[in-house]
Amino acid sequence: MTYERLNIQRSTGYQPGEQPDDPSVVKLNTNENPYPPADAVMAALRSFPADRLRRYPSPRAEAFRRTAGKMHGLEPANVIATNGGDELLRLVITTFVEPGKPIGAAEPSYSLYPVLAEIHDSPFVSIPLEDDWSLPADFATQLNRTRASLAFVVNPHAPSGRLTPVDQLAKIADTFSGVLVVDEAYVDFVDPNLAHDAVQLVRQFDNVLLLRTLSKGYSLAGLRFAYGLGTPGLIQPMLEKTKDSYNTDTLAQALATAALESRTAAAKTWQAVRAERARLTAELTARGFQIPPSQSNFILARPTGKRPDAGDLYQMLKGKGVFVRYFDQDRLRDKLRITIGSPRENDALLTAIDSHD
Amino acid sequence: MTYERLNIQRSTGYQPGEQPDDPSVVKLNTNENPYPPADAVMAALRSFPADRLRRYPSPRAEAFRRTAGKMHGLEPANVIATNGGDELLRLVITTFVEPGKPIGAAEPSYSLYPVLAEIHDSPFVSIPLEDDWSLPADFATQLNRTRASLAFVVNPHAPSGRLTPVDQLAKIADTFSGVLVVDEAYVDFVDPNLAHDAVQLVRQFDNVLLLRTLSKGYSLAGLRFAYGLGTPGLIQPMLEKTKDSYNTDTLAQALATAALESRTAAAKTWQAVRAERARLTAELTARGFQIPPSQSNFILARPTGKRPDAGDLYQMLKGKGVFVRYFDQDRLRDKLRITIGSPRENDALLTAIDSHD
Repeated sequence: MTYERLNIQRSTGYQPGEQPDDPSVVKLNTNENPYPPADAVMAALRSFPADRLRRYPSPRAEAFRRTAGKMHGLEPANVIATNGGDELLRLVITTFVEPGKPIGAAEPSYSLYPVLAEIHDSPFVSIPLEDDWSLPADFATQLNRTRASLAFVVNPHAPSGRLTPVDQLAKIADTFSGVLVVDEAYVDFVDPNLAHDAVQLVRQFDNVLLLRTLSKGYSLAGLRFAYGLGTPGLIQPMLEKTKDSYNTDTLAQALATAALESRTAAAKTWQAVRAERARLTAELTARGFQIPPSQSNFILARPTGKRPDAGDLYQMLKGKGVFVRYFDQDRLRDKLRITIGSPRENDALLTAIDSHD
Repeated sequence: MTYERLNIQRSTGYQPGEQPDDPSVVKLNTNENPYPPADAVMAALRSFPADRLRRYPSPRAEAFRRTAGKMHGLEPANVIATNGGDELLRLVITTFVEPGKPIGAAEPSYSLYPVLAEIHDSPFVSIPLEDDWSLPADFATQLNRTRASLAFVVNPHAPSGRLTPVDQLAKIADTFSGVLVVDEAYVDFVDPNLAHDAVQLVRQFDNVLLLRTLSKGYSLAGLRFAYGLGTPGLIQPMLEKTKDSYNTDTLAQALATAALESRTAAAKTWQAVRAERARLTAELTARGFQIPPSQSNFILARPTGKRPDAGDLYQMLKGKGVFVRYFDQDRLRDKLRITIGSPRENDALLTAIDSHD
């Protein structure tokens, strides 16, 4: 017999991107940073004392929260550390959504959101993005009409890379009657000339929660470390009630703190990724791909003209050891999401594409 | 305004044991192993390559699950790796309990269980242990009467250290109509002469889930790594649907695997803890404490005679820099739970007690 709940029986779960073991694979499929973590992070790892592994971690990651708060001009009470961004996404649902109440998101988007809604036994409300991947002008009004108590916006958007300006997010937060989660997983790659800074929303609105992760910007996807920024009214119930008692480990706390403290080293990788983003966009555009402007560490590329369809191209590239991401779903099945790699990796992608012509 | 769900507003959260920063504290309050992790674990840490931190972890901790399966004579499909035991406790609730359906446990027990039930919006059914901390003979029948779909048994029991034999657990599993979680957080410290091995229950019953952790036996409380053992019918929905996509990190997977592979090193610490358990029990008994036989790495000690009450003794010891655990609740407020430390730490405890006389 099965002991599973009915909604879990119905669920098919989340399908993570492929994580091949083969180190020769050119891996442009899961938005990892092509450069290694900062030297200071590895130094913290190498010198980590055995005795601290033996002891329980700080349950609420006090040192990390002080560092993150300071970096953003906020207090530790505005910060929660989590075991990857996925934990924070789950926690906001557990804490702020009654099962059965709708959860909304602009679509297409991170395919984990509807899975989390299903596990929570809540309907998922999908609000279509405009053709240029911008949020519809009446996004908040549409959400309120569904009585959603929570909504997710990824910014810069995945999988398009489009950036929604802060003033537009402010209007949404002001109108929406539930909790607005702005998933800033990729925000480190935004052009600094845009002076984009959503942290001001945390000071202005009691219903805005920002998600930051060290997976991409700080080259620490393997470490599982993210954090949320919000008013204490949003942070405290997750921090003191709903998260697992010791949700982040001692080693990860130390390395994540070292990573934020050596932010200037990480920022050099962001600049390198931006330079390659511009080059790869130009090279692929010259080869007939259509690519909307991206402020992220990936681009969404639609092959046109004589090229094979995106699904075939994905398979062809995989056969040549170049992994990109293909989503077999509406509005995406004619496109590939390509992570910006190192110059060598991006050249390998271009060579694989050219060799096919 | 608050955006919290009503059940979360009502919750007071779990209160972790104190984790003082002061390294001079004699810390006998949260059941950590007094000896450091195995050399092989630290070697795995020191040599960990930067590039693996940059990449996502194995989503389902394949290498660890192979090692753990082999160690227990089971298949990887019988194993789930989790971010500490707390994650597994949460996952069984999320996966197997409809909100509103009761969750049961023998009481007193781990104070996290009722907190998890509250977060899930399920009633918590507390079934009192006998005076000698054994499970009541009709435990399963009582559970069935409440229509609980899940029950927790800690074995060896916390906070008493009493061990329930496997044949008694088998009878409970056979009678109980829900999922029986046997929380074996402390099982590594059981006397090997007892040949206690609950893994056979996984082969016999489709409703038994064992929880193992590396926090205590392997001196890795800081790492947050545990695992569950059960039939694929119990493991698969948690592994493929309800756990966070990348719930354990790359570094923790590597260190946990190294820890299981160097199990004989850890087993030496278990033997040392048992020897000190016998000595500390004898020393405290000679000083008038009443202590039930423990198969764990802690003892539950009731001061008698001229000694102060347990709450005062806890405060007095804390004032002398010796932390033990005090539970201000029925059946426990006249007792102290004392973790077995190193010989030096246990001597410090005895000295602190004697100096008070």
